[in-house]
Amino acid sequence: MIRFDNDYSTGGHPLILERLVETNDEQHPGYGVDDHCTRAAELIKEQCSGEVDVHFLVGGTQTNKTVIASMLRPHQAVIAADSGHIAVHETGAIEATGHKVITIPGIDGKLRLEDVENYVEDYWNDVTFEHIPQPKMVYISQPTEFGTLYSKQELSDLYAFCKQKNMYLMVDGARLGYALAAKENDVTVKDISELSDVFYIGGTKVGALFGEAVVFTNDALKPDFRYFIKQNGGMLAKGRLLGIQYEVLFEDDLYEAISKHAVELADKLTKAFEEKGIQMKYPSPTNQRFPILTKAQVETLREKYTFADWEKIDDNLFAVRFCTSGSTKREDVDTLIQDIKAL
Amino acid sequence: MIRFDNDYSTGGHPLILERLVETNDEQHPGYGVDDHCTRAAELIKEQCSGEVDVHFLVGGTQTNKTVIASMLRPHQAVIAADSGHIAVHETGAIEATGHKVITIPGIDGKLRLEDVENYVEDYWNDVTFEHIPQPKMVYISQPTEFGTLYSKQELSDLYAFCKQKNMYLMVDGARLGYALAAKENDVTVKDISELSDVFYIGGTKVGALFGEAVVFTNDALKPDFRYFIKQNGGMLAKGRLLGIQYEVLFEDDLYEAISKHAVELADKLTKAFEEKGIQMKYPSPTNQRFPILTKAQVETLREKYTFADWEKIDDNLFAVRFCTSGSTKREDVDTLIQDIKAL
Amino acid sequence: MIRFDNDYSTGGHPLILERLVETNDEQHPGYGVDDHCTRAAELIKEQCSGEVDVHFLVGGTQTNKTVIASMLRPHQAVIAADSGHIAVHETGAIEATGHKVITIPGIDGKLRLEDVENYVEDYWNDVTFEHIPQPKMVYISQPTEFGTLYSKQELSDLYAFCKQKNMYLMVDGARLGYALAAKENDVTVKDISELSDVFYIGGTKVGALFGEAVVFTNDALKPDFRYFIKQNGGMLAKGRLLGIQYEVLFEDDLYEAISKHAVELADKLTKAFEEKGIQMKYPSPTNQRFPILTKAQVETLREKYTFADWEKIDDNLFAVRFCTSGSTKREDVDTLIQDIKAL
Amino acid sequence: MIRFDNDYSTGGHPLILERLVETNDEQHPGYGVDDHCTRAAELIKEQCSGEVDVHFLVGGTQTNKTVIASMLRPHQAVIAADSGHIAVHETGAIEATGHKVITIPGIDGKLRLEDVENYVEDYWNDVTFEHIPQPKMVYISQPTEFGTLYSKQELSDLYAFCKQKNMYLMVDGARLGYALAAKENDVTVKDISELSDVFYIGGTKVGALFGEAVVFTNDALKPDFRYFIKQNGGMLAKGRLLGIQYEVLFEDDLYEAISKHAVELADKLTKAFEEKGIQMKYPSPTNQRFPILTKAQVETLREKYTFADWEKIDDNLFAVRFCTSGSTKREDVDTLIQDIKAL
Repeated sequence: MIRFDNDYSTGGHPLILERLVETNDEQHPGYGVDDHCTRAAELIKEQCSGEVDVHFLVGGTQTNKTVIASMLRPHQAVIAADSGHIAVHETGAIEATGHKVITIPGIDGKLRLEDVENYVEDYWNDVTFEHIPQPKMVYISQPTEFGTLYSKQELSDLYAFCKQKNMYLMVDGARLGYALAAKENDVTVKDISELSDVFYIGGTKVGALFGEAVVFTNDALKPDFRYFIKQNGGMLAKGRLLGIQYEVLFEDDLYEAISKHAVELADKLTKAFEEKGIQMKYPSPTNQRFPILTKAQVETLREKYTFADWEKIDDNLFAVRFCTSGSTKREDVDTLIQDIKAL
Repeated sequence: MIRFDNDYSTGGHPLILERLVETNDEQHPGYGVDDHCTRAAELIKEQCSGEVDVHFLVGGTQTNKTVIASMLRPHQAVIAADSGHIAVHETGAIEATGHKVITIPGIDGKLRLEDVENYVEDYWNDVTFEHIPQPKMVYISQPTEFGTLYSKQELSDLYAFCKQKNMYLMVDGARLGYALAAKENDVTVKDISELSDVFYIGGTKVGALFGEAVVFTNDALKPDFRYFIKQNGGMLAKGRLLGIQYEVLFEDDLYEAISKHAVELADKLTKAFEEKGIQMKYPSPTNQRFPILTKAQVETLREKYTFADWEKIDDNLFAVRFCTSGSTKREDVDTLIQDIKAL
Repeated sequence: MIRFDNDYSTGGHPLILERLVETNDEQHPGYGVDDHCTRAAELIKEQCSGEVDVHFLVGGTQTNKTVIASMLRPHQAVIAADSGHIAVHETGAIEATGHKVITIPGIDGKLRLEDVENYVEDYWNDVTFEHIPQPKMVYISQPTEFGTLYSKQELSDLYAFCKQKNMYLMVDGARLGYALAAKENDVTVKDISELSDVFYIGGTKVGALFGEAVVFTNDALKPDFRYFIKQNGGMLAKGRLLGIQYEVLFEDDLYEAISKHAVELADKLTKAFEEKGIQMKYPSPTNQRFPILTKAQVETLREKYTFADWEKIDDNLFAVRFCTSGSTKREDVDTLIQDIKAL
Repeated sequence: MIRFDNDYSTGGHPLILERLVETNDEQHPGYGVDDHCTRAAELIKEQCSGEVDVHFLVGGTQTNKTVIASMLRPHQAVIAADSGHIAVHETGAIEATGHKVITIPGIDGKLRLEDVENYVEDYWNDVTFEHIPQPKMVYISQPTEFGTLYSKQELSDLYAFCKQKNMYLMVDGARLGYALAAKENDVTVKDISELSDVFYIGGTKVGALFGEAVVFTNDALKPDFRYFIKQNGGMLAKGRLLGIQYEVLFEDDLYEAISKHAVELADKLTKAFEEKGIQMKYPSPTNQRFPILTKAQVETLREKYTFADWEKIDDNLFAVRFCTSGSTKREDVDTLIQDIKAL
C-alpha cells in the first residue's frame, strides 16, 4: 500500500536524522534553554517583524491547548470555524482547560470576517452578556483543515477587527509550510508576525519527527509562557531535540524545500483528477486535496493506496482526502496519476 | 565541563538513533497504533503479570498528569511524599487538572506506611470529611527523588493498605531502570505489576530520546485511556517514535544494560566520596548520589564538573547531586574520582 | 411598571416567609444535615419511584454545573439542545469544569431522539472517535427554555436510548412545576424519577426564595455527591433554609398550587393574544409565552409592562416573552388582557 | 441542648427577616442589579477608602473560589496559612479551579511576614522556578480560623511586601464583624480597604441568613467579576435577597451591634474558664474560644451543651471550641458560666 492518507506516516527528513546523530553526544542543559534551541529561535526570529518570543513544543493539540490556556481568563472563550481543529479533533482539550470554543460556520474551512463581526457585535449588544462566555480570541488555521488559505487582505482584516475589539488573533500553522509554498499564497511568515498575536510554525507535518514553534508577537502575552509549557506537559527534558530539528529546517530553507515538494506533487494530483473530470470538494492549493470520487473509483484506488474518507456526498459520491508531504515520492505520485487516468 | 548535573544532558542511546534512521522511511498509521508500538507493548507485557494495558507517552510530568487525571473524580486527591515530583516540580500540573496533592513528610523521599495510614484513618474519622478532598490514591516513585528505593515488603504493604481502603497505588518509574539495577533492590517489574494499579517505565532518563511507558494493571482503570493521552497533548502524530525506542530498549535487555552501567559508575563515585570521609545526604543506591561537601570542595569540583546544588546544610556544608546515566563515560568518572581523591 | 419579564422578580411565597420567621430561632446543625432538610427530602421521595437520593442546592447554574461535574470523567461530554441553558446562559460553567457541551439543533427547544441517535451513532462510527469528546450524557429541560414539554413517550424513548448506549439522562427542572401544571402535560414526577438518571425540582422560579432539589435515581451516581456540593460552593452553612422552603412547598401541595396559578394566567394571556390574531413563536403550554408582536404593539405594551425581547423576526415583527409566576396577580393579568384587546 | 458549636446554628437577625417580609412583593430585576443591592453596596463603600467595587455572593467557599479564580492565571498559586480555610476545609475548591494552595505553618493561625518573605525569596532564587507554581497572592483571614487577629501593623507589612513583589493580598472576612468588635482590634474596614487588594465582609456567620460582600480595591482586579460570579454558580436570580440583608446589616450599625454582642459574651466565657484555671489553646479575642478541658470536664459540659472538638492535646486534655454569635442568648451564657464554675 502506498500511503496518501496523511502527512505524518513516515519519520523525519533525512537531514534531521543525520543531525540528531551528529549531535547525540553533546551535553546540554535540559528543558529548552540549550544552544540549539537558542539558535533555532534566532533563525525563526529573522523571518519575523519586530521583537518576538519563540518557544518549541511537541505537538499541535498540546500547542493549541497550552497557548490558549495562557491567553484567556476563565470566563473567556475562543472563536473558531466549525471545522477548526480545536473544535473538532482535540478530545475537548480546550474545554479541559476551562474554555468554551465558540464555533461559527466556516466557508471552505475559513472564518469570514462578517460572521465573526456579527457574532461579536451581537454578543456585546445582548444585555445578558455576562451570562455568556466572553469572546476574547479568534483562532484560525493557515492552511485550514480543508487546505484552504486566508489571503493577506483577509488576515489583515481579521486582525484589525480583533485589535479594535480588544481581542487576540491566533494562527495555527501546523501545516504552515504548505501554505507558504502554495502558488496562490500571498502571506509570508513576516506578514503573519505582523498580523497576529501568536502563531506557530508546524514541524510534525512538515519534515520534523515532531515539534511546533510558537511565536508570540504581542508583548502582553509573552511573560511566563514557559510555566505553561511545563504545566501542560510540553517541556521536553531533552529540549535540544526540538532546537536541533528547527535548526535543520530553517538554516538552509529546508522547510521551504520540503513544503514546495509536497505542494508541487499535490498540484499534479489535482491536475490529474480534474483532467478526468473529477471535482474537488474544497479549493485547496496546499498539500491536502479532496477529490469527489464515485464509489467505484474509491474501491479501485483503495486497492493500491490509502487515503482518508472525508464526507459522504450521496450514495454514490464521496469526498476523500489525499495528502502529500515532504517524504512523498515522485514515483508514487506518478503511479497514482496513471491509475487516476485509468479510472 | 563534564556534566553530572542530571541524567538527560545527552541524546539517546546510539542503538536507538540507529533504529530511528533504519525505520525512517517506513509508512505507519499515526497516533500510537502502529506495529512498533504494538511490539514494544508486547515486550513490556512479557515482563508483567496478568493482563496489562501499555501506552506510550512523551515525558514524566505529562504522564503523571494524564494518568492521575484519568483516575480521580473531581473531589478526590492524591497522596505524595513532600518531595514527590508531582508535589514540587510540575508547575502545579496536578492541581491544574483540579486535584489537590496531599503531602506527607517522607523519610529519605519515601512515604512510610504508618504515616499514610494515620492520614487516611484520621480523614475518615473526621466528621467533616466531606469538606476535605477525599484521599483516593497514593503516588510513590521508584526510585524516589532522592534515589532511594522501596523494598518489596514496603511496596507490598502500601499496596495492601490501598486495596483495603479502596484506594489506588501509582508508581512513578521515571528512573525505574536505575532502581532495577541497584544492588540492594529486591523489586522486579513483575513485582510492581502485581503491587500497583498503574506504573510507568521511564525512557527519557534511561537511554531514550524521550518516552514513558505507562502500564495499567487494574482493569477498572484501563478503559478510555487513549482519550486522556490525546486530551492532555501527549499523543504523538508519529507515535512510532515511541514504539521504536521501546522496542530497542526492551528487545535485548538494553534497558537493563544502560541502567547497570549508570549505577555501577555511581557506586564508584560514592565509594570515592566515602573513602574521602564525605558523607551522603541520602542512602541512594541508584544513579543519583548526594555527597555533603564543604564550600571549598564544591568550588574545587565546580572548576571541571557540573553538578546540582541540592540543600544548604550550614554555612560551610552543602549537599549536592551527581547523576550518572547510560551515556556517562567511564573515563569521566575516573577523572572525577581522581579529583575527589585530591580534595 | 408591571413586570412580566421573568419569573423571579418578586420574593418567595408568603407561606415560605412565614415559616422562615417561625423557625428562625431553632438551632440546627449546618450544611444540610438538619431535620428540615431530612423531612423535605422525605416529602420529595414520596413522589418518586424506588430509592432516590435528594440534595438541596441554591441555584440552577450551580446545580447544572455541580451535577454534571459529578457525573462525567474528563474526556466525556454532555449533549444539549442548542438552546439548552447549559449551552447558552451559564457563562461557560460546564466548560469551566472541563467538559464540552455538544449542541444539537432543537425543535422548539426540544432534542429529537433521532437527532441524538444520529450524533451518537456517527460518533462511534468515526474511526477517530478518541480524538473527539465522548458523548456520555444527554441534558434536557422540562419545560424547555421555550416553555415546551417532552411527552412521556418522548422522555421514555430518550431514556431507553441512553440506557442502551450506556449514557445518562439528566432533566433540568428549574421550572418543573410549570410543566407539571400544564394542561397538555402527561409526565409526572414519578415518571421522571423512572425515566432519568438525575433530575431536579426547581424552587427559585416556583415560589421559593431560592433552591433546587436534586434527585439522583441512578445508584451509580449517588455516592459522594455532598463533596461536589461543597466543592462547587453550593453547600449553605444554614442549609435549613433550603429544607424549610421545600417542606413548605411540598407538604400541602403548595408547589402544585403555585404552578397552576401561573399556568392558568399564562393560558389566559395566550388566549387574549390569539384572539387578537397574534401568533405564538413557540407552542408553550407553561408559564412562558412568546407572542410575535409588531413594533407598534411592542412599543404600546412597553409603556406599562416589562417583558423580554426574544427574537427579531423581521424589521416589523418581534417575538417577545411574557412570564407569569406564583406571584403574578390576577388583576395585573386582567389589565394586560384589556390592553392586548386594545392593541 | 444549648448550641455553642458554631455561629450558624440559627436563622438570621429578626430585623433581616422582617425586612425580607416587608419587601417580598416588590418587583425587581434579577441577578444583583436591583436597587437594594445598589444601596447596600453604597453603604459598604462609605466605610471604605477610595473607589471600590462591591459584589454580593452567597457563601464563604463560593466566595473564596470565585475571587481567587478571577485573580490568578493558571500557573499561579495562592499562599495560605496551613490552617487557612481554603487549605483545609473547602473540599479542594481552589485546586478544582486549577490552582495550588501553598501552605506555610501559621502561628496561632496567622501567617508571619518573615515566613512569607522566606518562601517568596527562596522561590525566586530557585533556578527551576518555572517548574513550581508562581506565588501570586497571599490569603489571610481576619479573624483567623483560630479567632486570632492581625494587627494593623502586621496587615500593613504584609500588604507592603505583596505590593513590592507584585503579589495580591486577599482578606477573608467570613467573621469580620467579630474581629471589628474585639477589644484588642486596631484594624477598621477602612484600614482593610487600604491594605488589601480584595476582602470580604461575611454575613452568613454575622447575622445574615447567608451572604458575603466582596470588596475589590485594586482597579486591575475589578473588570468582569460578574462573569465569575455567574460561572461559579454564585449569582442568585433573586439577588435582591443579598442586597436587602446587607442594607439591614449596614444601615443602622446592626452589623456592629451583632458582633459586639457575640464578642462580649465570648469574653465572659473566657473569663469564667480562666478563673477556673482553664487555659485557652489560642489567644482569640473574637467569637470563638478554645479552652483546654480535661476529659471529665468535656463529659460534664457535653450533657447540656454542644461545642466542637478541636484538638486532642494528650489522653486527658482536649482543646474544644465554643462559639457565640449574634443570636446567642445572654441567659444561655450565664447558665454555661455557672456550669463552668461548678466544674
